[in-house]
Amino acid sequence: MPDLDARLAELGLTLPTPMRPMANYVPYVVTGNLAYVSGQVPARDGHIAVTGKLGDPLTLDQGIEAARLCFLNVLAQLRDACGGELGRVRRVVRLGGFIAAPPAFTQHALVMNGASDLAVAIFGDAGRHARSTIGVPSLPGDAAVEVEGLFELA
Amino acid sequence: MPDLDARLAELGLTLPTPMRPMANYVPYVVTGNLAYVSGQVPARDGHIAVTGKLGDPLTLDQGIEAARLCFLNVLAQLRDACGGELGRVRRVVRLGGFIAAPPAFTQHALVMNGASDLAVAIFGDAGRHARSTIGVPSLPGDAAVEVEGLFELA
Amino acid sequence: MPDLDARLAELGLTLPTPMRPMANYVPYVVTGNLAYVSGQVPARDGHIAVTGKLGDPLTLDQGIEAARLCFLNVLAQLRDACGGELGRVRRVVRLGGFIAAPPAFTQHALVMNGASDLAVAIFGDAGRHARSTIGVPSLPGDAAVEVEGLFELA
Repeated sequence: MPDLDARLAELGLTLPTPMRPMANYVPYVVTGNLAYVSGQVPARDGHIAVTGKLGDPLTLDQGIEAARLCFLNVLAQLRDACGGELGRVRRVVRLGGFIAAPPAFTQHALVMNGASDLAVAIFGDAGRHARSTIGVPSLPGDAAVEVEGLFELA
Repeated sequence: MPDLDARLAELGLTLPTPMRPMANYVPYVVTGNLAYVSGQVPARDGHIAVTGKLGDPLTLDQGIEAARLCFLNVLAQLRDACGGELGRVRRVVRLGGFIAAPPAFTQHALVMNGASDLAVAIFGDAGRHARSTIGVPSLPGDAAVEVEGLFELA
Repeated sequence: MPDLDARLAELGLTLPTPMRPMANYVPYVVTGNLAYVSGQVPARDGHIAVTGKLGDPLTLDQGIEAARLCFLNVLAQLRDACGGELGRVRRVVRLGGFIAAPPAFTQHALVMNGASDLAVAIFGDAGRHARSTIGVPSLPGDAAVEVEGLFELA
């Protein structure tokens, strides 16, 4: 894996300070060479930056931005899991995307691309992942999107 | 594992042509001896064949058929993951089932049996899997059901 | 891992008799040193003890109790997976929490703490896990909460 911190800088990205879990659990667990990262909300500066439901009142673009922000938070936790060395990530294995939306919403895949496109932009082919995306009526703290991740480490 | 293509033929089943992901991700990732298959919708001939919500307007039978079709799509992706050799599948480890349904719906387990029964019909004891089934307000493209899979390969 | 049966007794806990799956699947699958436990509802004496939605009519305390009961059922299945020896559990890797709730609900994390706090009370540091918690409109059998688990075994 090339220098991912350089890649993040090239893309103009700064990882957020990992948010404290909202409850009694940890942000990631490593077992064997797999890192499980807990579901992350679109947090910035310790607050959930995008709340509400897709479709009403949130636009598709706001949803995409929320998914992107969720993935940056996943990445911030993952960097911790790697002892600061994102270069240890061998593969993005799977992302789970949860989109707060009413029954009539259908564009979940486009929203979740905010996370998936960023994974590929950062990790290249190693960022291409399996994915499940679903709608949900509500998320912790009224977050608009939640993203969880599974990663293979070197 | 016996000849699974023969078993599929015996059951009168033909795997669909794997659907192109609706977005920027891949249909499966293999890590170690585990294959993660992305959430699959009830696609046939490149279109989602069963849309809408369980209970209203979809009947239980339509839901079961949707779950069955989702699992055939999971299997089509899995065959690709195995380089065409489904005989490499050692175990169906886990299925995740997402059922588009209103708050009053309670028969998620029966719907998801469309997938689970097929797994056991095809793989026998190796098809017996762990499973989580939940209701969701909406799915990508208004799909009625989505199924993801985790498999152990030889 | 210390004597977990003694720890359960200390905490005044008795594991429920594992519930029969509501459908054609199995309560757990072990692959390598990982045990996947199927989503468990808040069952007691073979029935779902807490039904309905969080917020209305269920209180936060009822939701916490439901999550706690789900985790006891997860544990009962896990003990079976370990051949009766919970001491074989090396780590609680990940819990998935599904909370039946309307769109306006926001306290999913507090509800799911019913499961997470119990994991830490029983397993200590090895009970600290990754976690994803989401709202859902409905669950099998009108369960209020469903919890699935992933565990590393020795």
